[in-house]
Amino acid sequence: MDDLSNPPPGSCLLGGGSPAFIPELIEVWREIVSKQIQSGSMDKILGGYESPSGILELRETVASILSDESGTKISKDQIAITNGSQNAFYFLLNFFSGNFGNDQRKKILFPILPEYIGYTDQTLEPDSFLSFAPEIREIEDRYYKYFISLESFDSIPSWKKEAGCICVSRPTNPTGNVITDQELEFLIERANNVGIPLLVDNAYGFPFPKVVFGKSSFIHRPGMIQGFSLSKLGLPGVRTGFVVGDSETITLLHRANSVINLTSANPGQFIALDLFRSGRWKELCEKTILPFYLKKSIFTQETILNNWSSRIDYKIHQSEGAFFLWVWVRNLSLSVSDLYPILKEAGVIVVPGKAFFPGADSNWSHREECFRLSFSREDKEIEEGILRIGRVLEKFLK
Amino acid sequence: MDDLSNPPPGSCLLGGGSPAFIPELIEVWREIVSKQIQSGSMDKILGGYESPSGILELRETVASILSDESGTKISKDQIAITNGSQNAFYFLLNFFSGNFGNDQRKKILFPILPEYIGYTDQTLEPDSFLSFAPEIREIEDRYYKYFISLESFDSIPSWKKEAGCICVSRPTNPTGNVITDQELEFLIERANNVGIPLLVDNAYGFPFPKVVFGKSSFIHRPGMIQGFSLSKLGLPGVRTGFVVGDSETITLLHRANSVINLTSANPGQFIALDLFRSGRWKELCEKTILPFYLKKSIFTQETILNNWSSRIDYKIHQSEGAFFLWVWVRNLSLSVSDLYPILKEAGVIVVPGKAFFPGADSNWSHREECFRLSFSREDKEIEEGILRIGRVLEKFLK
Repeated sequence: MDDLSNPPPGSCLLGGGSPAFIPELIEVWREIVSKQIQSGSMDKILGGYESPSGILELRETVASILSDESGTKISKDQIAITNGSQNAFYFLLNFFSGNFGNDQRKKILFPILPEYIGYTDQTLEPDSFLSFAPEIREIEDRYYKYFISLESFDSIPSWKKEAGCICVSRPTNPTGNVITDQELEFLIERANNVGIPLLVDNAYGFPFPKVVFGKSSFIHRPGMIQGFSLSKLGLPGVRTGFVVGDSETITLLHRANSVINLTSANPGQFIALDLFRSGRWKELCEKTILPFYLKKSIFTQETILNNWSSRIDYKIHQSEGAFFLWVWVRNLSLSVSDLYPILKEAGVIVVPGKAFFPGADSNWSHREECFRLSFSREDKEIEEGILRIGRVLEKFLK
Repeated sequence: MDDLSNPPPGSCLLGGGSPAFIPELIEVWREIVSKQIQSGSMDKILGGYESPSGILELRETVASILSDESGTKISKDQIAITNGSQNAFYFLLNFFSGNFGNDQRKKILFPILPEYIGYTDQTLEPDSFLSFAPEIREIEDRYYKYFISLESFDSIPSWKKEAGCICVSRPTNPTGNVITDQELEFLIERANNVGIPLLVDNAYGFPFPKVVFGKSSFIHRPGMIQGFSLSKLGLPGVRTGFVVGDSETITLLHRANSVINLTSANPGQFIALDLFRSGRWKELCEKTILPFYLKKSIFTQETILNNWSSRIDYKIHQSEGAFFLWVWVRNLSLSVSDLYPILKEAGVIVVPGKAFFPGADSNWSHREECFRLSFSREDKEIEEGILRIGRVLEKFLK
């Protein structure tokens, strides 16, 4: 998360990944923190160190939630607590890639692109990513969806030697794609066959904040290591994340956390303990957070469909989850990277797609035809931003 | 900070590094957090991301405090905010050690031992530490003090090629030694001559929490990179640290924080902003924290002097700061490492000294004659613990 280079005042900031301020959630956080002060537990939250493994009761509670939601028995020894899931992935990606001695180098395989930009600088060794281009299925006039190219796993068999893990975000940041249960099962099987872990980043997904619009399931199986976060639940300021995995990897995470961070921050852990123990998290996700973002997504899609000129050759990735729309525009006279400063000048910030294609063929023009926009902002700002984007795109049609 | 292996119930826990719960401080934290809830600023603290460089106003405030306290002009561009100073040192030690290409390997020079145990697993490359044995000056019957061996800098000139930085904690964890202003000036000069930075860890020292009992100064000069923490001020649960240094290193820290942590946690930053802006921190340090630990230190020393048998050949390191006493016992029939389980069995936990001597000659018996004990616990627990230690030591005299 680099500092946003100062946008002009009045800009529509559709670039960031921040969650919205949802009044019902804010009320819950206030209530929990007030209770912590009144009960005196705040003294320990601020004034004490907890274990670098995380608070035991919280690990037990998270294990119980993940067991219930996945239908798979998960124990506290399979749960790590970290300073956010970004930090968790820094550890995990470096556990499973890099130099393993005897000239053995391992890389991270992204089975589908685009993929989260935040991973790509995290490895200690350079050139640590492999990726497979997706299959693109166009859906009616204005939509499309990425699918995992199942054939690539056979037609490019070198991944079996080169990959130290497979990694995917679900829903995917930036596209809002949710890989299907069948795709996920396929990845689990392929990872298991080769004996490498499948890392799944659920920051926007199961079981919280559960910003998943279609029908798909939370699945946990042996060989999977999954990350979770409080951030997209509305608590990005506390930097608290969770990992479920095999107990060996979890023990490594505890140790790495101890060496590198001494221990994790308490405020997020204790808010989570209250939220999860009371069971309130589930209703908040299903009745507040999910409907909020679904409405935002629909509004944003409709604003595009109703306002952009039909001369613009665009398609929206099917919006299946997370806080983003991903838009693909063909037949432009400029690349999206080159349009970025023009859009900024016109008062709207989006994220150009190029950076989300680590390891992709640099001749693949698709990389320069896509951008991400956030729908977690106020409706007015989204609407104005989309109008501005539409006007710019119209000027640069081929 | 590994989990303490479960000590028997009723044990005196003199091993840890936690600050004490000081009622006056707890009142201040409660007041600040209550105000954050009432004013509504808590919503943003929990619900928003701040810049990975840290909150701008906090960087300005910290720069202003460090300028005032050191008498050297320091700007906000010289300030980084991190998730605790442990995490800051992970970044810094790896910036200045390891593989720099062209077969150039650099190490971290500890100019005096013992030194903080928490650094020693942090480097990405193995065998990354150099160190100089200290000079030991015995003081009267029962005291001694470590000094930097100034000659070593000339008699072992290989450090000039091998060291990528010099690193020292002041006060030193574990010894409570505060290297003198003259020693610090010497290190600054030597580091500058070779063109490498001098890293100083002030976690217990200047300008906050200022647990420094004697007369010494906070000094900042070009070529120094210094770490600070809220932890020993009584806020270990929030994991917030600060670094002052040259703006290039600070920019690197911002970037590393962005990649590895996305951004730093907010709760500690916003408590610090209130505490520092109001100026209250200074009075709390000088009138509450410093007297509290000074009294504890004196109590602990007196308890040893009044209770341990005169047959025990012990010396206490001069207690100049931090929360620890460091005790050196000669003429024991067992090493301190071997005594540890016996002490634990007897109901007292201390930290054996051996781990605090990275890079030292493994034949140097001193490493196995010392241990650290914390005086941040309740007086009763300290007293009982010291009696138990005394009884064990008496049994193992040569």
